[in-house]
Amino acid sequence: MRILIVGGVAGGASVAARARRLDARSEIIMFERGHHVSFSNCALPYYLSGTVKDSNALVMMSPEKFRKQYDIEARTDSEVLSVDREKKTIRVRNGCTGDVYEEHYDILVLSPGANPIRPRSIEGVDRPNVFTVRNVTDIVNLKKFVTDCQIQDVAVVGGGFIGIEVAENLSMDGRHVSVIEAQDQIMAPFDYDMVQMLQKELLDHGVDVIVNDGVSAIGEESITLASGKEVKAGMTVLAIGAAPETGLAKAMGLELGETGAIKVDHNYRTSDPDIYAVGDAIEVFNRLTHKPSRLALAGPAQRQARAAADHMYGIPHNNKGVIGSCAVRIFDLNAAATGLNEKTAGAAGIPHDSVYIIPTDKVGLMPGSAPMHFKLVYEYPTGRILGAQAIGRGNVDKRIDVIAAMISMGGTLEDLKELELCYSPVFGTAKDVVNQAALVALNLLYGRVRQVPVTKVRDLVETGAYIIDVRERNEYSLGHLKTSVNIPLSELRDRLDEIPADRPVYLHCRSSQRSYNACMALVNRGYRNVWNISGSYLGICLYEYFTDVTTGREKIVTEYNFK
Amino acid sequence: MRILIVGGVAGGASVAARARRLDARSEIIMFERGHHVSFSNCALPYYLSGTVKDSNALVMMSPEKFRKQYDIEARTDSEVLSVDREKKTIRVRNGCTGDVYEEHYDILVLSPGANPIRPRSIEGVDRPNVFTVRNVTDIVNLKKFVTDCQIQDVAVVGGGFIGIEVAENLSMDGRHVSVIEAQDQIMAPFDYDMVQMLQKELLDHGVDVIVNDGVSAIGEESITLASGKEVKAGMTVLAIGAAPETGLAKAMGLELGETGAIKVDHNYRTSDPDIYAVGDAIEVFNRLTHKPSRLALAGPAQRQARAAADHMYGIPHNNKGVIGSCAVRIFDLNAAATGLNEKTAGAAGIPHDSVYIIPTDKVGLMPGSAPMHFKLVYEYPTGRILGAQAIGRGNVDKRIDVIAAMISMGGTLEDLKELELCYSPVFGTAKDVVNQAALVALNLLYGRVRQVPVTKVRDLVETGAYIIDVRERNEYSLGHLKTSVNIPLSELRDRLDEIPADRPVYLHCRSSQRSYNACMALVNRGYRNVWNISGSYLGICLYEYFTDVTTGREKIVTEYNFK
Repeated sequence: MRILIVGGVAGGASVAARARRLDARSEIIMFERGHHVSFSNCALPYYLSGTVKDSNALVMMSPEKFRKQYDIEARTDSEVLSVDREKKTIRVRNGCTGDVYEEHYDILVLSPGANPIRPRSIEGVDRPNVFTVRNVTDIVNLKKFVTDCQIQDVAVVGGGFIGIEVAENLSMDGRHVSVIEAQDQIMAPFDYDMVQMLQKELLDHGVDVIVNDGVSAIGEESITLASGKEVKAGMTVLAIGAAPETGLAKAMGLELGETGAIKVDHNYRTSDPDIYAVGDAIEVFNRLTHKPSRLALAGPAQRQARAAADHMYGIPHNNKGVIGSCAVRIFDLNAAATGLNEKTAGAAGIPHDSVYIIPTDKVGLMPGSAPMHFKLVYEYPTGRILGAQAIGRGNVDKRIDVIAAMISMGGTLEDLKELELCYSPVFGTAKDVVNQAALVALNLLYGRVRQVPVTKVRDLVETGAYIIDVRERNEYSLGHLKTSVNIPLSELRDRLDEIPADRPVYLHCRSSQRSYNACMALVNRGYRNVWNISGSYLGICLYEYFTDVTTGREKIVTEYNFK
Repeated sequence: MRILIVGGVAGGASVAARARRLDARSEIIMFERGHHVSFSNCALPYYLSGTVKDSNALVMMSPEKFRKQYDIEARTDSEVLSVDREKKTIRVRNGCTGDVYEEHYDILVLSPGANPIRPRSIEGVDRPNVFTVRNVTDIVNLKKFVTDCQIQDVAVVGGGFIGIEVAENLSMDGRHVSVIEAQDQIMAPFDYDMVQMLQKELLDHGVDVIVNDGVSAIGEESITLASGKEVKAGMTVLAIGAAPETGLAKAMGLELGETGAIKVDHNYRTSDPDIYAVGDAIEVFNRLTHKPSRLALAGPAQRQARAAADHMYGIPHNNKGVIGSCAVRIFDLNAAATGLNEKTAGAAGIPHDSVYIIPTDKVGLMPGSAPMHFKLVYEYPTGRILGAQAIGRGNVDKRIDVIAAMISMGGTLEDLKELELCYSPVFGTAKDVVNQAALVALNLLYGRVRQVPVTKVRDLVETGAYIIDVRERNEYSLGHLKTSVNIPLSELRDRLDEIPADRPVYLHCRSSQRSYNACMALVNRGYRNVWNISGSYLGICLYEYFTDVTTGREKIVTEYNFK
């Protein structure tokens, strides 16, 4: 059997390796348009800061190694121009010699990836100081330009993963970076309230973050935004997104999905049974929204590749769809997310609720213990877990991976509450962050307590709502909501007569744990209209800070407190 | 309602707090024999190294704070002497004044914990230089003794969690520590092959580890082992284990379980419906072995406490049993385990198989990337996940927590293979360690490849088995099995005629990945008797090292290689 593969990175290389393990005799050839096969896309940005020192390290397997170790032929600088489905041939151009030749296939695999978007509408988009990041050559050129031309100011357009990772690494390399994002927030997998913490982290490290604005023109020393604002930038990195490479598929008449990506069946076969497709160019099925979607991630690409190779050899594969799990480090913060957030759950029309808690990530007295901001989204009224987001200095990826596992297994809040996770004070707390989130969520679901999110606090302050801050007096004195009343939890039972029973009472503390206890104390004494402010003072300060600072809006707190 | 609680640490304090949240008016009193309530048992050892500098930090809640914030009375130095179940009273002795008094209860909760074992059979066991570790007072006294008496050599008897954590922290404090373990290995949750790495880590940091030996006598400057060996030790810490505190329960005629701990029902009620029991003193149900067992861990204790309090107020709780998840740091290694290991699965009569893989814990080119040793145990032939063990410098607790979640949800290898976990090169690999373990296990389960464990390699070498080392020549030259033949994977296809088809062929590389590819290449060329050596050279070296070094046994490798 002759297996030809278009594209030699995550998807293509994985198909090749798996097919070879299943069959010693088939002929396997990968055609890669770029100069390298099997490089680590996800590690590209880390070359900019010198975290990865040698660009050769980004390439995991050379064509020679593919040949020697796996008997797989990898042809780089080889663009597949067209496919003749009837003759089962492809036409290939050798980028070095310019020669064009044909190859016959029994099975063809498309793993062409996605192409960074370069909007023609931006004036100057083709200037030599405008870059995109897709492969090793791109990142080497980018680094060379920034170094050789001693660029001080860089604009990164797009606040997604690649944009933010590029911004972080260029900043670590000593450049002043401005991130321009057209939406009202960076990093779409995170909800607006959670992402404020990431935006603050960028500001704190000298990276400018401009939201709700686009780029209209790029010049030599600055760019012009849609708002008319000028931003100093000797170089611009476009990280607006990537479009699935569907050129070949379209030209040969393969079916595309409703997202515009290549449509595949359960087994990653296209509408032509002899042609498979995997990776960033295909449309996948989201198992939570039950809708077709796109997901440009390495893990799913590798899984699709294995499944496609298995199918060629009659090995069945259980296609479970995707949930979308991701992680990023931004300076001193780690952030990870999985499944649906409030926005995507809402857009999919799934009734849901969520909790936002800020427990410590390990026993408080241990070195390195830090608050972890954790949001859990679940289906209402079933309590089925839909997604989570975690941000903090500690092990956020652990908590998100546990939630990803629970989502995949159809777990509910009751299941999550009972999870028996490993514990030592070095690693966590006896009741882990995820257990605590489930407990809080169940208290809500079972109607023991009610909550308002940090997003509503400004309204409460401005409308003169009755807000009790139950932190101790010394904590209150270091910063508090301008309109709050301080009744420390330790004084609450003696000062009940101060608390009105005829209007809503909103409570908060530092992280919502003490205010939850205070809420329960009031509820159990007959108060009917009691609300816990989810996220509490820490969450309020983080939620308000970025907009206050970047817009000059009036603060609702006397002093921010982020500890 | 009047709720009296015997014991004020993890279990007792959690019952009290939950009961208070559910009911503002009940009277809640905790009686704690020791001097502190609500301290962090698990953090006690870290006071010895100064990781926790102030012993006061070990105490999370004072009686005053309990009273002020939660309206809970906590009486320390208060021993409950007896219970009159008919009158529903307890007799309490105030340890400070010596006064004995009675209190009436509506509901009684037993959370007395477990008592460190001090075998009377050891001569000198009551000497002033012999310590056990249970509470803050113990650890303060221990630290004071070791400091004031300038103890240089310490013996720690017992290689369980407390023993090893005490040994590590005393060693970090500059003491020379000898660990004496009666079994053939330390740290029972890990299998014999995995634990060798932990024993090596202790040796590497100057901690002596003596296995298969007990203590017969303790003197002022040394201890005498059962074998007759003398070990220099100015101080001895007994960490042999702890016996559930069943004195009160026995005296009042409550039913005990077959493990000797207090028997409780689904709702943590004892045989007396007005008396609950939680924590280290009770018998729990292991959901994997389906047998009663004991489990002295803080997380389950807190969960039991909440369930007990809920039951008092008519709130149902789903008792899922326990699986046993744990974690420990030993110098530069992190180790975690969950569920059953090969030993406990075998003892429970559960047919099982396992895989041992050594992938990198994050993308190899990223700083801090390190091998992770990972063993996955699953039921045979169903593929249901039973347990896992992970050891390495990186995020082992993440992988074990994911497995714990999968076990709790009844997951199989197929489920684990498909898990979509969060990925960035900073945190992991696109195909995570746990995915890889599932893939290898499925290859075994589906009969694509066969394996032998590292435990059999010495036999293979000694019986002259045909072993191929498929690493490249330069790797082989730095150390290899004395009897292995070097056929690098890159030369394999050209040297097939050297490989016998009429006898078993065993293959290994560094970490089993290349040898797996080599196995498949041979199998697909018609070789019928091909075996992958699970764990490969890295695993072999680690497995052999401790016994070689401590017994002077002849090496089966030319040079160890641990990288």
